[in-house]
Amino acid sequence: MASQKSDTAMSPKITGELLRLLRQVMRSCKYFSEPIHAYIVPSGDAHQSEYIAPCDCRREFICGFNGSAGTAIITEQHAAMWTDGRYFLQASQQMDNNWALMKMGLKETPSQEDWLISVLPENSKVGVDPWIIAADQWKNMSKALTSAGHSLVAVQDNLIDVVWTDRPERPSTQLRTLGLEYTGISWQDKITTLRGKMTERKISWFVATALDEIAWLFNLRGADINYNPVFFAYAIVGMNSIRLFVDLKRLSDPVVRDHLQLDSPSRPELSVQTFPYESVYTELQAICAALGPKDKVWICDKASCALTQVVPKAHRTPIPYTPLCLSKAVKNATEIKGMKMAHIKDAVALCELFAWLEKEIPNGNVTEISAADKAEELRSQQKDFVGLSFPTISSVGPNGAIIHYRPLPETNRTLTVNEVYLIDSGAQYIDGTTDVTRTVHFGTPSAFEKECFTYVLKGHIAVSAAIFPNGTKGHLLDSFARATLWESGLDYLHGTGHGVGCFLNVHEGPCGISYKTFADEPLEAGMIVSDEPGYYEDGSFGIRIENVVLVVPAKPKYNYRNRGSLTFEPLTLVPIQVKMMNTELLTQKEKDWVNGYHRRCREVIGAELERQGKMEALQWLVRETQPVV
Amino acid sequence: MASQKSDTAMSPKITGELLRLLRQVMRSCKYFSEPIHAYIVPSGDAHQSEYIAPCDCRREFICGFNGSAGTAIITEQHAAMWTDGRYFLQASQQMDNNWALMKMGLKETPSQEDWLISVLPENSKVGVDPWIIAADQWKNMSKALTSAGHSLVAVQDNLIDVVWTDRPERPSTQLRTLGLEYTGISWQDKITTLRGKMTERKISWFVATALDEIAWLFNLRGADINYNPVFFAYAIVGMNSIRLFVDLKRLSDPVVRDHLQLDSPSRPELSVQTFPYESVYTELQAICAALGPKDKVWICDKASCALTQVVPKAHRTPIPYTPLCLSKAVKNATEIKGMKMAHIKDAVALCELFAWLEKEIPNGNVTEISAADKAEELRSQQKDFVGLSFPTISSVGPNGAIIHYRPLPETNRTLTVNEVYLIDSGAQYIDGTTDVTRTVHFGTPSAFEKECFTYVLKGHIAVSAAIFPNGTKGHLLDSFARATLWESGLDYLHGTGHGVGCFLNVHEGPCGISYKTFADEPLEAGMIVSDEPGYYEDGSFGIRIENVVLVVPAKPKYNYRNRGSLTFEPLTLVPIQVKMMNTELLTQKEKDWVNGYHRRCREVIGAELERQGKMEALQWLVRETQPVV
Repeated sequence: MASQKSDTAMSPKITGELLRLLRQVMRSCKYFSEPIHAYIVPSGDAHQSEYIAPCDCRREFICGFNGSAGTAIITEQHAAMWTDGRYFLQASQQMDNNWALMKMGLKETPSQEDWLISVLPENSKVGVDPWIIAADQWKNMSKALTSAGHSLVAVQDNLIDVVWTDRPERPSTQLRTLGLEYTGISWQDKITTLRGKMTERKISWFVATALDEIAWLFNLRGADINYNPVFFAYAIVGMNSIRLFVDLKRLSDPVVRDHLQLDSPSRPELSVQTFPYESVYTELQAICAALGPKDKVWICDKASCALTQVVPKAHRTPIPYTPLCLSKAVKNATEIKGMKMAHIKDAVALCELFAWLEKEIPNGNVTEISAADKAEELRSQQKDFVGLSFPTISSVGPNGAIIHYRPLPETNRTLTVNEVYLIDSGAQYIDGTTDVTRTVHFGTPSAFEKECFTYVLKGHIAVSAAIFPNGTKGHLLDSFARATLWESGLDYLHGTGHGVGCFLNVHEGPCGISYKTFADEPLEAGMIVSDEPGYYEDGSFGIRIENVVLVVPAKPKYNYRNRGSLTFEPLTLVPIQVKMMNTELLTQKEKDWVNGYHRRCREVIGAELERQGKMEALQWLVRETQPVV
Repeated sequence: MASQKSDTAMSPKITGELLRLLRQVMRSCKYFSEPIHAYIVPSGDAHQSEYIAPCDCRREFICGFNGSAGTAIITEQHAAMWTDGRYFLQASQQMDNNWALMKMGLKETPSQEDWLISVLPENSKVGVDPWIIAADQWKNMSKALTSAGHSLVAVQDNLIDVVWTDRPERPSTQLRTLGLEYTGISWQDKITTLRGKMTERKISWFVATALDEIAWLFNLRGADINYNPVFFAYAIVGMNSIRLFVDLKRLSDPVVRDHLQLDSPSRPELSVQTFPYESVYTELQAICAALGPKDKVWICDKASCALTQVVPKAHRTPIPYTPLCLSKAVKNATEIKGMKMAHIKDAVALCELFAWLEKEIPNGNVTEISAADKAEELRSQQKDFVGLSFPTISSVGPNGAIIHYRPLPETNRTLTVNEVYLIDSGAQYIDGTTDVTRTVHFGTPSAFEKECFTYVLKGHIAVSAAIFPNGTKGHLLDSFARATLWESGLDYLHGTGHGVGCFLNVHEGPCGISYKTFADEPLEAGMIVSDEPGYYEDGSFGIRIENVVLVVPAKPKYNYRNRGSLTFEPLTLVPIQVKMMNTELLTQKEKDWVNGYHRRCREVIGAELERQGKMEALQWLVRETQPVV
């Protein structure tokens, strides 16, 4: 999946009364010692999650806009919301005229800082909830405001929550324990490895704030956030102690207690002390009060300002990626086996879907929504299915050109034999996470559609088949996916790939394949990323070809400076529609790649379809994997 | 040229007495109110120039090591010098045992900060000349030292200069004025454009410190630094005034006075006020003392700490690249015409050289040095020749694998029919700057040499023929040059290209083609860069194929979002040796590129050779440009 999508209700939210209440609270001095002249409402939650729970959708609550990116700022006189080009239309439809839409990326649009400075009276106080602003964002905003004579102040109570009377509860779903057969490494061994890295860097404490890192570390999963099997928690690991901060009700389950050895720890240094979720602040304060002069604390750059500032600057060692993020990215043999199994099951469901679509579409009653529902139904029949890994993008014709499209009743199109169909979907299985995009035509594609599809395919192959030295960063491969499109004057405005978790978030750091980043970590054998170039013809069609691929060692002819080489092995094994290809544009090497890939789809998925007795899907697979010449 | 080279005397400098004197000065309190416990000697000059004048070679003076990169630090007990992998051998040969060589990039090597903290007594003063340390370097070093209880102090008199009794004078060569026929734009119009950009960003003053930017702005050239036609100066431009700081003796020349309209300025706001070079500090202080509360001053991140700190922080607008750097990078029609002409003359000289080498080598008396001398002699016969643009890299066999090699009497090899010969050379002509590398064999190359050459050629073509959208940054093209090498497990450890000045520095920002940078500016039509992939087989041979190329608009089939496309046009027109190619490894498209390139060499350079009556070189050119099939 190329970027985050969200539900999109298209009528504006009426916000006049809400804003009146909020401004009253800002003026009241009840939550801060002085009146607040402006209040900033960022997108995220206290863990800087990409997907957030309903109780954290504060920016949506106050302005109505529910896209994945956007910051609202409310002053006594004004209310403005900044978002990027993906969301200009949606935001303008969802916000009423109390709100000014600030179109980021346009020359005439002021930055939040410049806008604040232009509208505020002298010596203003700008408030923000320090839990939902990252430490680095706080720093930049504070600097700009201070230099203009204002100040950024941390308001401990969230002012949106004050006026949000029917705010949902923070979810506290049942925890799921994962055994060694899924994780490959016990949480105890993960703690020991973490402590080894801490010793190496002379670090006394590590503060974990990212939800997927905490889930990975303890071999636990939750369902607190849609599509992401995580749970709200913090963790602080020292050389002799482990503190886990989580709603304590969740720990009454004997399976969880046993998994964490809460009642009978094997060794004292592996004993997990549990605390309420909210007490992370005071506990971290207590830890910091007892720090020796040389003690250092690891905390990620992207952690909340509130928690970061608890650690005195002299003791703080900020890191762009935590050691957990790096360890989690390199999958072990058990996780790789699980990811492969998950992708086989996922491919079975998709082969069934395409066989079914082919049969049903001529009847004229398959829509974007019903096709997405069918895909979910078929996936849910597979073993260890947990849920989707993101909202399915099921898009016909012009809807396919909207990169973050999600079908809604008012936009829902019917699948026909006349338009290109793009489906980007994935699931969570207990053994792994999937994410796959296929673009197909059920009739006869136009020459231009085929031409564009073939350029995208050439880009997909160029990345997938690339051989590159150990230590290469993913962003250096991004242009390979674009070279052929560029040659014809075409391009796509998203990255080529993102890291994928193992029964975790479908988007994860610290590696990826994108021109946008430079601070990504080098690719290593065992990392898993997506390879998903595309082409989008506005108002007409969208094309994307996405596989999840595993980084594996390669053995080319030479081995310069003994550095070793890497390449990719596709985990996704779903045929790429030959009908959409202009095979004349493919080189022999590219045809060989397609045929090799399809042979493997037929072998691996064919065997599984046979085992599951899905004969129609098997016939479809066999037909779709005929070699191209 | 891929990286900077320097003279290399290989016996150690005896430094015991010098260090004793320096330590005496450090202790004396004569140049700073307290004793200095450590003194840092960076590589650069006050303008952060890549090449420096003899009077600025302070690090070389104190330790003996004369590579292009290295920092010396002297304490009461220790003396240590940090340099990178290119120079480990050279530095160990040039420094005596008073010095510890700090090998940067090795795990066990401490950073300068960490080393200082480990060796200094508590509360130490670390001195540095604030003129030769850049503002950002000062900031980092100061922060680290302060956090360990020490302090970094600015010592206004350079302490090396105090003990350097026979230090050369700062050069003050004659200035050369360039008319519109070379520059295309008068200095007055350049000032007006600069002021337009200042108005746009609400900037009151701009401080120019880079020597090539000042030379470009005033359409003046000097010869103060070898290979770089620049002169020591500063400039400060306001909305109504222009201050030029330069050795005033240079301005007695009536041609220069007339060029700058010193005696009769056309308009008051274009009147140039001249000041002694050294008075930039006090003048900038005076300007800053008179700043209004909203006045902002533009100064580059890379300017010296001394000058940067004159501007109060609230008034300082630091920029990674100055507006002059950006304007200078986009060559105008006159400059492009001049660069083309310079490359034609340069190609004539190289065709003559190769024809001559072919004839002379069998006699066994051509060496790396004599071949380089011959190349210079032939270039010097061309119109408007000024000098070389960098020291010629002329290298045979294993010497070719040393990327920054420069032939010396003790390393000088004879050219034979048995070894690969690599020559990377260039010149300054009044109309332009050249930089070209060719790798040739005068006998029969081995299959492996041909294989590697062909991979490098494929990379060179992949960049040169690439089509990419307007706004693409050069670093996104770097992998194109490596893809084929990577496929065989090979690589080269330098960037693919650098910006090239027009009768200015052969290395210039802000664009280039390298995996190492991310902050490069987008490529634009009119920019000029090198395209120079290579392969180096240690102990055996080196291969590099380098053209200087011009960014030009491309017209592919489509035009996505009306962004427009770009590609490269080679300015260098010297045949690439077909004998070194394994043509079986080339695609038809690549063969077409080679044949098209050679056709153009034959047409353009052939005509000029004929015009100049160089018939032997012409015959050589005709033979070397036969089409490959």
